[in-house]
Formats: sequence, structure tokens, C-alpha cells
Amino acid sequence: MSQYPPELNVPLSNQFIIPKNSDIGATLREDKESSCTYLCGNSLGLLSERSKGLVLEELRIWGSHGVVGHFSHPLDRPWTKCCDEVHPLLAELVGANEKEVVCMGTLTNNLHLMMDSFYKPTPERYKVLCEAKAFPSDQYAFTSQAAAHGLDPETTIIQVSPREGEYTLREEDILEILDKEGPTIALVIFSGIQYYTGQWFPMKSITKKAKEQGCVCGWDLAHAVGNVPLELHDWDVDFAVWCTYKYLNSGPGGIAGLFVHENWHKTERPKFAGWWGHELATRFEMPSKFSPIPGAQGFQQSNPCVLAVASLLGSLQVVKEAGMMPALRGRSLQLTTALESFLVKSKYFVPLDRVSNSTDFAKPGFTIITPTKHSARGAQLSLLFLPTGSGVMRKIFDALVKEGVIGDEREPDVIRLAPTPLYNTLKDCEHAAESLERAFSTL
Amino acid sequence: MSQYPPELNVPLSNQFIIPKNSDIGATLREDKESSCTYLCGNSLGLLSERSKGLVLEELRIWGSHGVVGHFSHPLDRPWTKCCDEVHPLLAELVGANEKEVVCMGTLTNNLHLMMDSFYKPTPERYKVLCEAKAFPSDQYAFTSQAAAHGLDPETTIIQVSPREGEYTLREEDILEILDKEGPTIALVIFSGIQYYTGQWFPMKSITKKAKEQGCVCGWDLAHAVGNVPLELHDWDVDFAVWCTYKYLNSGPGGIAGLFVHENWHKTERPKFAGWWGHELATRFEMPSKFSPIPGAQGFQQSNPCVLAVASLLGSLQVVKEAGMMPALRGRSLQLTTALESFLVKSKYFVPLDRVSNSTDFAKPGFTIITPTKHSARGAQLSLLFLPTGSGVMRKIFDALVKEGVIGDEREPDVIRLAPTPLYNTLKDCEHAAESLERAFSTL
Ligand SMILES: Cc1ncc(COP(=O)(O)O)c(C=O)c1O
Ligand SMILES: Cc1ncc(COP(=O)(O)O)c(C=O)c1O
Repeated sequence: MSQYPPELNVPLSNQFIIPKNSDIGATLREDKESSCTYLCGNSLGLLSERSKGLVLEELRIWGSHGVVGHFSHPLDRPWTKCCDEVHPLLAELVGANEKEVVCMGTLTNNLHLMMDSFYKPTPERYKVLCEAKAFPSDQYAFTSQAAAHGLDPETTIIQVSPREGEYTLREEDILEILDKEGPTIALVIFSGIQYYTGQWFPMKSITKKAKEQGCVCGWDLAHAVGNVPLELHDWDVDFAVWCTYKYLNSGPGGIAGLFVHENWHKTERPKFAGWWGHELATRFEMPSKFSPIPGAQGFQQSNPCVLAVASLLGSLQVVKEAGMMPALRGRSLQLTTALESFLVKSKYFVPLDRVSNSTDFAKPGFTIITPTKHSARGAQLSLLFLPTGSGVMRKIFDALVKEGVIGDEREPDVIRLAPTPLYNTLKDCEHAAESLERAFSTL
Repeated sequence: MSQYPPELNVPLSNQFIIPKNSDIGATLREDKESSCTYLCGNSLGLLSERSKGLVLEELRIWGSHGVVGHFSHPLDRPWTKCCDEVHPLLAELVGANEKEVVCMGTLTNNLHLMMDSFYKPTPERYKVLCEAKAFPSDQYAFTSQAAAHGLDPETTIIQVSPREGEYTLREEDILEILDKEGPTIALVIFSGIQYYTGQWFPMKSITKKAKEQGCVCGWDLAHAVGNVPLELHDWDVDFAVWCTYKYLNSGPGGIAGLFVHENWHKTERPKFAGWWGHELATRFEMPSKFSPIPGAQGFQQSNPCVLAVASLLGSLQVVKEAGMMPALRGRSLQLTTALESFLVKSKYFVPLDRVSNSTDFAKPGFTIITPTKHSARGAQLSLLFLPTGSGVMRKIFDALVKEGVIGDEREPDVIRLAPTPLYNTLKDCEHAAESLERAFSTL
């Protein structure tokens, strides 16, 4: 490990509460009270002391002030404006100006809200271009939106698949489809980072090509926000949606976010309005005519959950203190590279090109399907277990838990491991690789 | 006060944390550390010890277990099923079977979701019948839904207004419009209890007439749920939406709920699908085909906010222990009747019929615009301050705060006072009336 800088053994922020071996079922570990090896920030980020503190504060103020907290709040965060401190931080994280972002709702709900406004099929231009095997909720959203317009999802939704024997998409294949079918495509919508493979799509070039072809371009940033640097405004992205419970550590089911590019603020008024999107200055005069806040914040429908906002704000403050994306991404690259280098040394590791060129893997092993290029991945590595469909993944996953390693499994054959720059260390990466080795040896 | 049973001076549940005079700006009170007179549960319910405890528990488990809490939860509330204990309690509160209700989203968002599915205008039947001066968010929703169908809101949305000189709607007027215009009306949607006047609409008879006329009938139960007894299933209501931060004490922006009648479960599949509406048994196998949970729960789009659900569950457990709606409503009737009887004794009180028959009120005073009939109101009384438009309301409101009385103001002339059966007492009602008297005397 001498090749790695010693700082990699100190977390970027010590603000986080890390589950202990005893709590997560690490039966093979003797150090029951030590922190487990939590490599699952891609699924549910950990609780920061700051988030906990802010949630407790809001509970206390709800108790001490009741309804008064909406307008007069002893800590100067009146609930009518409880997202005011969140918005600039979200804007910075996604590369947007403050009017382009809003903290609201939940991811799938926001995706529908954006599609309601931005997916406007015509007889000539009606298709939705997306990745094959998008996260199921997104697939259900695309399918049901197409059906709501009376379109047949089969012919409306075009899915780009990996080539035979490959696991991730090639930029040239996506661009080629856009070149060929562009004029019939109404909406291009990919995830920033693919949840299963960990591939970071070339967002800038896809967006550029989509716009050249006259398509609207949206992104599901569930696995990208807080993980990789984003420049939504400069890339000319039309809209984006995300959740905050992964790399942004807002807690299970935390409040989500969305982005609407400035280009649209004049023309694209919120299609399905609610009072929380009405300008604050007159909102409580209860006017019957809707006058939206200009920009993304006009899309708000309801007053947001204060506990959820507080939890998110706490974590964003930690992210800010840690140095935002430059610091996070810098450390993330180092950690993920280190994890990869430990894994490829395993005697059970099979290089991806060998897996692609053969179907004959009788012996248990694994490969990594996440791209190796830094520009094509974030924190996560997706390990594919061999032989596929044999149940090796499940056995290894259970063995890893006993070793105190929390990754996350995706049926049928993948375990995702994501060293998170805020709270993971080089030691976590090393321990995960060693545990994997032991897990295989007991199969 | 001898006419009132002594139990009215003991709250129905001592589970609640009541703001203190010192915290809410009650500068005229010497007993700074005593509980204030909180008559604002119609706007934001108070924090129960139980809600606080459950939120703290979930924070603790997020910290100790991270992502593991989704499936394996030390207190047996795995987050994938975190609404399982909420649903039967909500069902009982609204008079539904468990499959007809779901805890999800936010009120205005749920209203849109329901209108997406249930508002299906045709050239013959396209109108929306609602009350004049519906809560603004609902007005924005109706208007934007009409516009989304290419309809002119002016001719599409029919608002029933009070008669000249009256403040609340007459049942016969609503039924008459339904009789006359029924065949052109697609959707009848009222609030269960009107937020401004406190009128409880005759839900059963409006629903019955709407259904006879072939309309769909939906309800906004923001001010009705947890306040008055509801029988949504038996009344044959098609759908209903509500928030839980008022009489259900879930905290600012708490998670909301909705109802879809069993009649629709076979035919009305969720129009805008998300993975959380997919059957739990196969949800995490990430199938590409959406297979919804039968009933209202199939409408879920995203995983719900665990902190918000915990907070709601805590309060619902208190409501359950207190005896659900029979106990709450029984006490509520007593408290509101008592408050009314104290208020009408005021020398500043003007009977409503005198206000209606004259526009000439030079002297400051007030009337009560909420119906007196028990079957036409819930906990809330709406006080209208005279002369209207003169700013008396604002002065009285500020004076009440100084006396430690928290009601809530609605511009231009109304203060709403709602004794909440769970935590208010007869003394609160008496103190509010006395404070009002003093407030007037210092004008
Ligand atoms: C009757 C009614 N409808 C709708 C709303 C809007 O609520 P939300 O912000 O939860 O969507 C409210 C809020 O107080 C309300 O009282
Ligand atoms: C890529 C992606 N999209 C959508 C979702 C759905 O999220 P939600 O339940 O917050 O709507 C997820 C959840 O993990 C996700 O990873």
C-alpha cells in the first residue's frame, strides 16, 4: 500500500456515524464494536452528525414553537424558506445557477413532473431514447408516459443496448442512433451513472448531439449527484432529476431535487401548479391566480417536509466544508482506483475481455464490468460474479456481510462496491478485497 | 363553567409537547414557562413524544445500520415496509379498507396524481365543480389540469359561491347545480372542511348526487382527516387526498395520504407508474414490466421518507390509544361548543345574521362564520373581524399572541381558532375568549 498517499487512510470528513460490525451481522469479526466496511454510499449514504443535529433542532423547534416556526424561527430558518440554504449548495453541486434548481418531492415523482412538461410527442417526433436496463422506476415512468399520450411503448421507447458480449454502452453507438433517428426522437433521457454497471455516460456529448438533433435532453442523476462533477448549465441540459439519499446522505427516502435550464424559464411554466411554486411575496395572501417563482422553483407544488430538508442540509454543509466536488472527486478517483487495483490482483479475478470472449467459466470468479476509464465512472465498481446465474453472487454477498463488508447486491449477478470519498478510507478498500478473497476460498 | 364536564380540563392525551409562552412571544404573560394556548392544530398539529421518539429511533437505526435497515431492522420496521403500520390506522380514520389508502407524497402532488387518473374530460362532460375560494393550491391544480387538457379554465371550472350576504355554501345550492349541470360535469371536487370558513360540507349527499349524475367525486380532506368522522368507502367516494400535518400532527410538510375506492381497483391502474407501486415480492428483482400492488398503494412512485413516516406513525399511535375518531370527535364537539358559547357572550360579538343584513359596522367587533350545526363543522371556528377590510383582524391577532393565544390568521379578516381534542382543554377555550375580550378593549 506504500504507493498510496497516507491521507487516504483518514476520511475526508469525520462527521459520519459508521455502522458497527455487531449491528450489521458481521459474525466473523472479533472487533464487534469497530466500524464496519461500508461501501454502500451509492445506495444509502450514512448519517452525518450535522444532519442528526439539524433534524433534532427542527424537532425541538416544532415542539417549542408549533406553527410559529413557519415565519419566525429562533435559528433563522423559517420553514416557509427552509430550502433557501439548500438551493445554492445543490446549484453548485450540479453546475447550475440557483434559479435552475429546486429541492422538492421524490425522484420518480420529479421525473414524471419533468416529463409532463418536457415530453411533448408529435406525430413526427415522439420517441424516447434511453439506455436498455434503465432503473426499473424510470422504465415504468417512460412506459406509462408514452401510454398516457396514446403511444405504444414498444415502438416509442428506443433502448440502446451494449454490443453482444459487452456490458456497457459505447458512446459512438449512442451518438449513431441519435444521428440516424434524431428527427423522430422527442426526448433523450439517460441516467448520468448507470445504477447496475456504474458507467458514467458521456453526458456532455450526448446532450450536445441530442440538442443538435432538436431533441429535449434530460438526465436521471440519482447516482451522479455528489459523485462526479456536473456542469448541467454549461452542457445545455434541459432538465435533470435526482434523489439525495445516496452520495448526498439525506437519509432513507430523503427529499429530492430537480434542474430546469434557464433557457426554459420564460416559456415553460409549471404545467401542474401548486401553491408552493407561487411567489413567496404573495403566497399567503391566498390569491386565486397562480404567479410562479421564475425558474425551477416554480415547479414546487407542496410545502416540503422540514425534517427531510434539515437532514439534507446537514449533509450538504458537510460536503461544502469538505470542499465540494473538486475535493470529493479527487479523493474518489484515488479510492476507486485503489479498490480496483486490489481487486484485479485477486486470484479469482477474470479480466472483462476474457469473460466477453468466452461463455465457459466453470469455476467461481468475478470480473469488473464498470469502465476503467476515469471519465466513464464514478465511485462505484460493479463486480459481476461467475459463472453467471449460478448463485455465486449471493453466497459471496452473504460471506462479505459476515466479514463486515456492506456492498449491495443487484440480482442476478452483481455486487456494487462504492468507496465514498467523504467517509471511506483506503483501509476499507483493502479490507473489502481481502474479504472477497476469503469469501471465494470458502465457497 | 360548571355546565361543562370536569374532564374537559384534562387533555385527551398528555403525549404532546406544547409551546411555552416565552417561546411564542406572549409578552403580556407573566407565566413565561407555562404552556401557551395553542388553538392552531388546524394549521400545524403539535409534536407528540411518540413522534419524537420514533424519529429518533429511525435516526439511530440509520446511523447504526445504514442500508441494512431497508430489509433488516432491529425494531422490525424494515424501511421497505415502513408504511405497513400506518395504512391500517389511516384506513380506520377515513373509513376505508386498507387497500384503499396509501401514505405517500404531498397533498397538492397527490391531488394532481388523482386528477391525472380521474379527470377525463370529454367534449360533453368536461367541467370541474368546486367551491368558490377553494384553497389556492387546489385552485391552481384545477386550473392547470383544465389547461393541460386544452380547456379554458373560465368555462371549465364551475365554482359554487355562497349566496349574497352569506359566507358558507348551502347544501341545496350545491345539489341544484349538480342536478342542472350534472351531465356536463366530469369531476366534483370539494374540500371536506373549508379551510377559511370551517364549513364541513355534506360529503355524503354531495357524493351521492355527484355519482347519480355520472360524475367522478373526489375530496380534499386536509382539514377533515383526524377532525371529523369519515366513511369514504361507504359514501362511495371515488378518491380523496389529504395532508397529515394538521389534525394528524405529523410535522411541517409531513408525508400525505390518498384514497382510491375499491370500485376502481380493477380498472384504474396507476397512470404514472413508479417502482414503489410495484408489488413488493418482485420489486427488487428489478423487472422491466410494472406489476402494481392492487389498489391505492399501486399509485406509489418513490420510496417514502422514513423520518416523515416515523413522525406520522407516532402521532397515529397516539390517536389510536386515545380511541380514534369516536373519542376525538366526542371531545371535539364539546370543546368547540364551549369555545363558541364563551365567544358569543362577548360584548364585541355580532350575530352572523346581523352582519349579513347590514354593511354598517363602524365599531370593531367580530362574528363567527362557521356554521353552528354540529354536522356542518369540525373543531375550527372562523372569526370574521369587523369592520371588514379595516385591519382589526391583524391588530387582534397580534394582541392574542401577546396573550399567549396562537390561532391563525387568514387575510383579509379571519382568525381561525381550533380547539384540538387531543391536547386542548376547556381552559384553553376560556382563556382564548378572555384574551379576545382584552384585545378588543385595548384597540
Ligand atoms: C385545504 C388545503 N388544500 C391544500 C393545501 C396544500 O397543502 P400542501 O402544501 O401540503 O400541498 C392546504 C394546506 O394547508 C390546505 O389547507
Ligand atoms: C437511477 C435511479 N432512478 C430512480 C430511482 C428511484 O428512486 P425513488 O424511489 O427515489 O423515486 C432510483 C433508486 O434507487 C435510482 O437508483
